[in-house]
Amino acid sequence: MIIVMQAEAAQSDLEHVVARVEGLGLRPHVIVGTERTVVAVVGDERNAQMSGLETLPGVASVLPILAPYKVASLEVQSEPTVVQAGPLVVGGGRVGVIAGPCSVESREQIVQTARAVKEAGALGLRGGAFKPRTSPYSFQGLKEQGLELLAEAREATGLAIVTEVVSPEDVPLVARYADVLQVGARNMQNYRLLEAVGRTRVPVLLKRGPAATVEELLLAAEYILDAGNRQVMLCERGIRTFETHTRFTLPLATVPWLHARTHLPVVVDPSHGTGHANLVESMAAASVAAGADGLIVEVHPDPKCAASDGGQTLDIPAFRRMMDVCRRVAAAVGRTLG
Amino acid sequence: MIIVMQAEAAQSDLEHVVARVEGLGLRPHVIVGTERTVVAVVGDERNAQMSGLETLPGVASVLPILAPYKVASLEVQSEPTVVQAGPLVVGGGRVGVIAGPCSVESREQIVQTARAVKEAGALGLRGGAFKPRTSPYSFQGLKEQGLELLAEAREATGLAIVTEVVSPEDVPLVARYADVLQVGARNMQNYRLLEAVGRTRVPVLLKRGPAATVEELLLAAEYILDAGNRQVMLCERGIRTFETHTRFTLPLATVPWLHARTHLPVVVDPSHGTGHANLVESMAAASVAAGADGLIVEVHPDPKCAASDGGQTLDIPAFRRMMDVCRRVAAAVGRTLG
Amino acid sequence: MIIVMQAEAAQSDLEHVVARVEGLGLRPHVIVGTERTVVAVVGDERNAQMSGLETLPGVASVLPILAPYKVASLEVQSEPTVVQAGPLVVGGGRVGVIAGPCSVESREQIVQTARAVKEAGALGLRGGAFKPRTSPYSFQGLKEQGLELLAEAREATGLAIVTEVVSPEDVPLVARYADVLQVGARNMQNYRLLEAVGRTRVPVLLKRGPAATVEELLLAAEYILDAGNRQVMLCERGIRTFETHTRFTLPLATVPWLHARTHLPVVVDPSHGTGHANLVESMAAASVAAGADGLIVEVHPDPKCAASDGGQTLDIPAFRRMMDVCRRVAAAVGRTLG
Amino acid sequence: MIIVMQAEAAQSDLEHVVARVEGLGLRPHVIVGTERTVVAVVGDERNAQMSGLETLPGVASVLPILAPYKVASLEVQSEPTVVQAGPLVVGGGRVGVIAGPCSVESREQIVQTARAVKEAGALGLRGGAFKPRTSPYSFQGLKEQGLELLAEAREATGLAIVTEVVSPEDVPLVARYADVLQVGARNMQNYRLLEAVGRTRVPVLLKRGPAATVEELLLAAEYILDAGNRQVMLCERGIRTFETHTRFTLPLATVPWLHARTHLPVVVDPSHGTGHANLVESMAAASVAAGADGLIVEVHPDPKCAASDGGQTLDIPAFRRMMDVCRRVAAAVGRTLG
Repeated sequence: MIIVMQAEAAQSDLEHVVARVEGLGLRPHVIVGTERTVVAVVGDERNAQMSGLETLPGVASVLPILAPYKVASLEVQSEPTVVQAGPLVVGGGRVGVIAGPCSVESREQIVQTARAVKEAGALGLRGGAFKPRTSPYSFQGLKEQGLELLAEAREATGLAIVTEVVSPEDVPLVARYADVLQVGARNMQNYRLLEAVGRTRVPVLLKRGPAATVEELLLAAEYILDAGNRQVMLCERGIRTFETHTRFTLPLATVPWLHARTHLPVVVDPSHGTGHANLVESMAAASVAAGADGLIVEVHPDPKCAASDGGQTLDIPAFRRMMDVCRRVAAAVGRTLG
Repeated sequence: MIIVMQAEAAQSDLEHVVARVEGLGLRPHVIVGTERTVVAVVGDERNAQMSGLETLPGVASVLPILAPYKVASLEVQSEPTVVQAGPLVVGGGRVGVIAGPCSVESREQIVQTARAVKEAGALGLRGGAFKPRTSPYSFQGLKEQGLELLAEAREATGLAIVTEVVSPEDVPLVARYADVLQVGARNMQNYRLLEAVGRTRVPVLLKRGPAATVEELLLAAEYILDAGNRQVMLCERGIRTFETHTRFTLPLATVPWLHARTHLPVVVDPSHGTGHANLVESMAAASVAAGADGLIVEVHPDPKCAASDGGQTLDIPAFRRMMDVCRRVAAAVGRTLG
Repeated sequence: MIIVMQAEAAQSDLEHVVARVEGLGLRPHVIVGTERTVVAVVGDERNAQMSGLETLPGVASVLPILAPYKVASLEVQSEPTVVQAGPLVVGGGRVGVIAGPCSVESREQIVQTARAVKEAGALGLRGGAFKPRTSPYSFQGLKEQGLELLAEAREATGLAIVTEVVSPEDVPLVARYADVLQVGARNMQNYRLLEAVGRTRVPVLLKRGPAATVEELLLAAEYILDAGNRQVMLCERGIRTFETHTRFTLPLATVPWLHARTHLPVVVDPSHGTGHANLVESMAAASVAAGADGLIVEVHPDPKCAASDGGQTLDIPAFRRMMDVCRRVAAAVGRTLG
Repeated sequence: MIIVMQAEAAQSDLEHVVARVEGLGLRPHVIVGTERTVVAVVGDERNAQMSGLETLPGVASVLPILAPYKVASLEVQSEPTVVQAGPLVVGGGRVGVIAGPCSVESREQIVQTARAVKEAGALGLRGGAFKPRTSPYSFQGLKEQGLELLAEAREATGLAIVTEVVSPEDVPLVARYADVLQVGARNMQNYRLLEAVGRTRVPVLLKRGPAATVEELLLAAEYILDAGNRQVMLCERGIRTFETHTRFTLPLATVPWLHARTHLPVVVDPSHGTGHANLVESMAAASVAAGADGLIVEVHPDPKCAASDGGQTLDIPAFRRMMDVCRRVAAAVGRTLG
């Protein structure tokens, strides 16, 4: 941590800062510059009570130096984590594809979709049974019945089931059916839920909140890792910006940035990331080119009749075309799709 | 809802759209323009399955017309809701002030703070017992012991207790101690929690998520209202933008915008909204001038030693000065503070 | 400047960094921490070629310490700059109000508006003669004829004329008519224009660009100050964020933040900052409460017929009400309006 | 345009709106819904004075229907524009690559870079002679001498020269040397400059401003097209968002979105779009996968000594690797690089 003093700070201010840093069990180094004096602080700045330092008289600002996450860091584990759930492999040169409808609607819908996406090369089946919806007046999902239909689709196809869990008390129930527990963007900082999925040994797909920084995403993962579950996939699904022509803005530079800092694999969701079916193929291909370890894509046999998210959902032929392009792009960057 | 057709849409595309709208039980009006044809749709667009319409061939875009919230709307209740919790009154010309530390740390700290903020004119005492923290390595609060200390501070001062609840299963516990249940920004879209506080009859302070639109805030309130609890305060506490000189960007135009659409009172949090103690007084005064019905402010007897959020916390003398300015500004805009 | 080394940096990387810092004429201090080594660099980091340092092997990041602006800084001039242009005084406890239409449309329109806003207490008259418009198909202003009409309005009322200049070659022409040269938000980083207005001795109103940081705003001011013109007002007029219910998001914390760093006065534009006439009064009052040294407001005798920006323009009675509220709020915070 | 009336609007309000729309020469269609009445307006809404309509009594909101740009639109020209400048071809299945230093520094630097990037497959050479810089204290470019050095590099290699012009009065000078005139992000809405480059017949690379919407980008292009110059390339170079781990956020969905609306080719700048050399290769590959028609990349023989932007600049070997990956990805999506 670096404490920058104000230009007009008094010597007594500086002494006060130094004393306080020592009181926190850290070692201060005072450096007198031509315009400013700074205090470089040596020691683990993560646990100490830092936030009061910037209110001390004479302090201009406080700059952290250490990244606040640990277990997720490449400094702790340098080889990439590969997440495996049934046939689905994410990471380590394999680009795993998860596809399926926004919501589970009926046996026919989910089984038909599962067969089609499997044939096109997907290894995971997504489908929401518990749906967090912005409006209380929207369809909220089939709940446990939806989980049962997902299990039937798995039996029919062998695909790994990826489905969302929205509350800590549901974790045991959902974990009985799911091969991957999805923590949605709205729940990225629902810490009780993170701890609850962290106590299972079921792989977790953790979606970035639309206003979360990448450091906050890593810290949310840290809650899961810290609870003992190491099978965590990070998912970029778009952030809120001033852009309105897409539902969210999909910042693919997240992928190489995360790869330079964490061993956890990175999945991209081009469906929520764009919000428009006609942009999904391009952004799926771009995600693979950027180095994504996985894709999660909304697919429905008849998007215009989907119970939710129809506008961003591919139909089966469009998904097949997307897979063809992504397979070629994966090969171009030295990876294998599916 | 208005469906805008593409310039090159075929007549058959138009007929398809019309048929589908009718199939949803809505009435389509086709208007042929010089460059585009639009279909104006009459009927309640909130419940129908709209999201697939934009994927129909020939459709350029779909524009909603009705606001998606109902019970929160001025169209349903035109007189302002006044929230009352013990001595604290928020709305109806009264600007209620809630003050106190980020976290409850000790009996001495919370009782001393309660006495001081009461003397300065606050009618509510804030203090976190359950703390949602970005990092698993940060202080997570005293939990039930913190609630007991808050109850002691209430006994000593009569102030209304405002404290956060982070999970549905904690609602009964927290509701035993609290006069106002706070739903934090990270949990604004934790729908199970919204439903749980909605089933109590304890007033709720609902904080806006940092990436939530004002419509999403109203829809989150709608979950609580729909569950039967009408004592809801909306709280603006800043949004995530490209600005980094403040912790969040505090968009005060939210206050008059909400007043033009909802009967629910609007509280502003200038502490989280700025992140820096030296900006709080100005922004508190600005909030009152903008028409806020309440303020929630972080105050600590010794901010530099606070267990969390020290950098944005006022000490007692600074809080007193803030109250003096806000009292005069409230009078200038025809309202009463405290 | 602080150079943070990677955890796994080699000793030779460190030596390379140290050598390079010395080569730039700066003094490095190496501090070996428990997890990281940092190099604190003493000397003026503004002029040297820093940007390459972060590409050196073993470097994790580079943190600047000094603010990049100089002449605008309170460290150079501690007493506030008061800008005076005819009757208009901005700063030093006086809140100067500039009002008028978006565009000058006709003699009758501008003279009538000037008389009305003067009567309500404004001391400056705004009105666009050269209009930068997003679309080439929109009204682009009356140009020199507009300037002449503004001069007539000044003769009729004595108000100071505030009008925009959009190109360096127009500066001499506009400066012949204007009492204050406005540099619009789109031109905040048009450096030739900044230099051109900097070479005049006419006061300048410099509007913040909607994606500009406050530091970039100060650096833009620095171009004008550096060219010799010290009569600069900074203007907050809203930033681009994900919010769409207002035209821009108006971040009033800019006002106290700037006051803590610069001697230049700060004006707020609640018309562009909100985009809706019904939000202007509240945000004008909030601006004054936040400490603004001036307001610039769009007023038109008949907003629904305005050639541009009608939706955010006050009519005369609404402007009068706004002035009444703002006058009382100014008194409440120890300032004088008008 | 759709005018949405307030729920409580009076019949006289509606009649007033209808009369006003007719007064603007447009045709109103009144549609009475169950909760709201809307007025659908037929006719060219681009030229009329619309902005006042939302201030009429009883009006809730006004929704535009037509895209505001014309000449740039696919509706006007359905086949893609291919821009050609010497050997550089952008569009029509060819991905043109422009590479070179941020600033022209010396004959040796620019000629050496030109030779190296040509060998790696670039067909355009970038290099700034006139540099718009955020701070007046930063290096501002070699100006005309820089242009002469660029011309020498062209003679030595045959590459097309791409260089920025910052002011209308410089256009004739820069156009004497350049094969492509670059309009920088800060000048995207410098309309005089757009008109000036529009009057030449030199191809233009128009960079998106960091707070500009994609519609504003198209309208800026419209200024150039409208002045008669049809050789316009749009360039996505990143937007300002809350993300700070990258210099800007690079939203690649811009590429397919633009392709669905305009015939103009789309170039991506992964150097400014990320700000970090180690992210450039991934994002260049992703851009090509997303369908970009060109790339513009910062390359310098010795980035750590570059006069500007060193942190985001590739060295020659890194550029070669980037080209190899991009060539393979281009083939995977059916395009040819270089």
